[in-house]
Amino acid sequence: MKFTLDQIAGILGGKVEGDGSATVNRLDKIQEGKAGGISFLSNEKYEPFLYQTEATAVIISETLLLQKEVKCNLIRVKNPYTGFTQLLEAYSQLTKQSKQGVEEPAFMDASSSMGDFGFRGAFSYIGKNCKIGKNVKIHAQAHVGDNCEIGDNTIIHPGVKIQYDSRIGSNCEIHSGAVIGSDGFGFAPQEDGTYKTIPQIGNVIIEDNVSIGANTTVDRATMGSTIIKKGVKIDNLVQVAHNVIIGENTVIASQTGISGSTEIGKNCVIAGQAGIVGHIKIADNTTIGAKTGISKNITNKGQTLFGFVAMDLKDFLKSYAIFRNLPQIQQRIKELEKKD
Amino acid sequence: MKFTLDQIAGILGGKVEGDGSATVNRLDKIQEGKAGGISFLSNEKYEPFLYQTEATAVIISETLLLQKEVKCNLIRVKNPYTGFTQLLEAYSQLTKQSKQGVEEPAFMDASSSMGDFGFRGAFSYIGKNCKIGKNVKIHAQAHVGDNCEIGDNTIIHPGVKIQYDSRIGSNCEIHSGAVIGSDGFGFAPQEDGTYKTIPQIGNVIIEDNVSIGANTTVDRATMGSTIIKKGVKIDNLVQVAHNVIIGENTVIASQTGISGSTEIGKNCVIAGQAGIVGHIKIADNTTIGAKTGISKNITNKGQTLFGFVAMDLKDFLKSYAIFRNLPQIQQRIKELEKKD
Amino acid sequence: MKFTLDQIAGILGGKVEGDGSATVNRLDKIQEGKAGGISFLSNEKYEPFLYQTEATAVIISETLLLQKEVKCNLIRVKNPYTGFTQLLEAYSQLTKQSKQGVEEPAFMDASSSMGDFGFRGAFSYIGKNCKIGKNVKIHAQAHVGDNCEIGDNTIIHPGVKIQYDSRIGSNCEIHSGAVIGSDGFGFAPQEDGTYKTIPQIGNVIIEDNVSIGANTTVDRATMGSTIIKKGVKIDNLVQVAHNVIIGENTVIASQTGISGSTEIGKNCVIAGQAGIVGHIKIADNTTIGAKTGISKNITNKGQTLFGFVAMDLKDFLKSYAIFRNLPQIQQRIKELEKKD
Repeated sequence: MKFTLDQIAGILGGKVEGDGSATVNRLDKIQEGKAGGISFLSNEKYEPFLYQTEATAVIISETLLLQKEVKCNLIRVKNPYTGFTQLLEAYSQLTKQSKQGVEEPAFMDASSSMGDFGFRGAFSYIGKNCKIGKNVKIHAQAHVGDNCEIGDNTIIHPGVKIQYDSRIGSNCEIHSGAVIGSDGFGFAPQEDGTYKTIPQIGNVIIEDNVSIGANTTVDRATMGSTIIKKGVKIDNLVQVAHNVIIGENTVIASQTGISGSTEIGKNCVIAGQAGIVGHIKIADNTTIGAKTGISKNITNKGQTLFGFVAMDLKDFLKSYAIFRNLPQIQQRIKELEKKD
Repeated sequence: MKFTLDQIAGILGGKVEGDGSATVNRLDKIQEGKAGGISFLSNEKYEPFLYQTEATAVIISETLLLQKEVKCNLIRVKNPYTGFTQLLEAYSQLTKQSKQGVEEPAFMDASSSMGDFGFRGAFSYIGKNCKIGKNVKIHAQAHVGDNCEIGDNTIIHPGVKIQYDSRIGSNCEIHSGAVIGSDGFGFAPQEDGTYKTIPQIGNVIIEDNVSIGANTTVDRATMGSTIIKKGVKIDNLVQVAHNVIIGENTVIASQTGISGSTEIGKNCVIAGQAGIVGHIKIADNTTIGAKTGISKNITNKGQTLFGFVAMDLKDFLKSYAIFRNLPQIQQRIKELEKKD
Repeated sequence: MKFTLDQIAGILGGKVEGDGSATVNRLDKIQEGKAGGISFLSNEKYEPFLYQTEATAVIISETLLLQKEVKCNLIRVKNPYTGFTQLLEAYSQLTKQSKQGVEEPAFMDASSSMGDFGFRGAFSYIGKNCKIGKNVKIHAQAHVGDNCEIGDNTIIHPGVKIQYDSRIGSNCEIHSGAVIGSDGFGFAPQEDGTYKTIPQIGNVIIEDNVSIGANTTVDRATMGSTIIKKGVKIDNLVQVAHNVIIGENTVIASQTGISGSTEIGKNCVIAGQAGIVGHIKIADNTTIGAKTGISKNITNKGQTLFGFVAMDLKDFLKSYAIFRNLPQIQQRIKELEKKD
């Protein structure tokens, strides 16, 4: 999609200096600007790039005094950063929402329904008795099993697998390869050393405004529901086990794992590769560092935890600083013993 | 699927108190029971919920004396927990085994064959020369490459990718997004700093009664076979590298990684996010804690290991307790040095 | 595919001893040789197997003097290891390159083009405005989004998801379930505790000769490009976040995670389950051990790092050896305090 600078100035309420009929089809960083791109200048540190950039246009402040001649066209606005963000969102929205209708062949059971303005990509699958809201994008090769519900404006990216009985809210985005509603990992040990499968008959509930990353897995509950509450953002390759509950607006970075029946509070921030054992509760506003292992309930709100077995972050760093010096510590003890 | 209470009582050899023609279509926890659901009461701790539950029916002991009036229907059996488990399995079986036939379009090469009672979902793929047993479910968008064998009653969930030459046993379950038989990670360093791909021409053998979790990866052998023996249960997002052998009835939790050519014994339990280096052997009945790194052979059976670099669990916990106190330890040394 | 021993001797420039019309269709280890397989003997340690193997043929040195009678046919060549490697590569090439044409139904938008000798498997998807080179294999159920470019001879395995705007070089191999170009994990915290999605409008660039493992995820840049330079080899289940740059010929083992905007140098070796924070630089030729956490810039080339919070490998091992003995250390301090 190409836009003229006049069109963009119109959207932003700005004023073109240069050729308003020039077109752009890409947003560039100012230091990497190329013909056909539009950039912005907000931080004065980057001003030297304004005079060098090959971008077709740069959004600048209406008050900026030019130090030199520029090669590019300019769009002057009140706040260039805000203006650029507006463009960014408009562009992203256009890209993500442009697809509509059905690319054949796509599969949808006759018992299922889908609201207006939706998209079903080629080789996408919708099973029986599904209720899909308005403006939902089920991209190519995505899978929605039997008896699922998906709310308005949700985007299901290519190759996502949503298993039967799942409920997905509105304004969610589920990224490629994510698996929602696979069986929980439940096996009862038998006397002969084998394991018997414990049926996993619950489901997954994902509330509104949730983002689930690529190749992340969210298991269905043994009974009841695995619940991801509204506003939660989960990165790629994260494991969410059966019967886990994740509180509102909690953010979880890549490759973290949460074991069965654990309940995470609201507004937590969990860094990458953290691991949380099963059957515990994590208080609201907890921050968990990268690679940190959590093996006990966290009951005080607002703590920051870190370590192979989690400690208060500051305490861990003090102990680890001494760990680095253990050879000297040992030497000092030897000295004391000698003198003794 | 709806069942009347009379039908369920018949299956369980129990007796209905209330309306035998009432129907249920869901299994609920007693504390979360809603109309249309059936629950059970086994642990007396939960008895108060019996008098409040909105479930349509509750399975209780034939000997239980009611303390108050109940709103729900009852099914009295010898052992409510066993009875409920029977229902759970029957329900799960019905859900998982109900699909049969072919959902078009599905792809199967003419040289491949599939036994009776099977299911091939829409957009599923079966390559050349495959032998698929009886009652096998190849769900929508699943992939079975050329020259594969799959035993009876195995379930291949939506979007699973089984690459060429793989052999999967009977009564296995492979969950969505798992990849079986991708190339092992083998590259020979060249003098100019580049790497040359070492062809990976082996395969993967998965024996009977194995479960493989969602988005788990099992690489084919460089030569010979990567082997997962009978009864092994593997959780989500686990990495099993080329030429690994995993012994019978070993259980591996989420996000664990096992490097190339390592051999894991029988009846081991490996917790989440553990990592095991390549070319080692782990004895039978070994327990490996979460996040634990194993870098050497484990030769004694029945050990429990834990730690960033694995130690005996008890030893690790003792050392870690002192690690937490290293600042005080350092202070005590300073005191001694002062007095010295 | 079957080959006669005469054919193979012709390829290798060797000489058959035995039945040149015997056929083989498999490469076996000499100790596991079975009828229909061909093995090789290079290391004299394995010579005893030569007299026992059930392989149809074994490749041996032209100068080897037999100690006993052999049951198998022989192909004598100058260097058996080199000869076998030649066969291995030829075999692997045949397997991987044999597919050509289109398996219907496959989806390719009319605006996209594909070079000669290519393959598009059933249920594969190619969006709008894609330029696919010569001899490219897009296997069954693989996905190539709008505006992608893929260079010659690249193999896209079953179920790979390449999102819109990605550029993949020549001679690359992307393994099943990998996701290229999913949105970066970018959310701006709002005053009410919710998060606002930061549009991710950049792309992914993968240069020539790159291998990406099964179920690995490579996120698109927020703006600009996430770049994986030529010759990089990435294992399974690795996370590469937005705007990461990975230098030439760097090798990354399974389950490692690299956070946003980090730049990894050339010829680095990163072991499994390592974690690297965002916005840092790692110097060329750095070696990072398994499970190691990197939280700072690594500026000196050629270091080897290890540890929960990375240290020089040798220093870590010294400190960890003392960590294992902390209970005794504590005891020694107690003794000193008593005597004091």
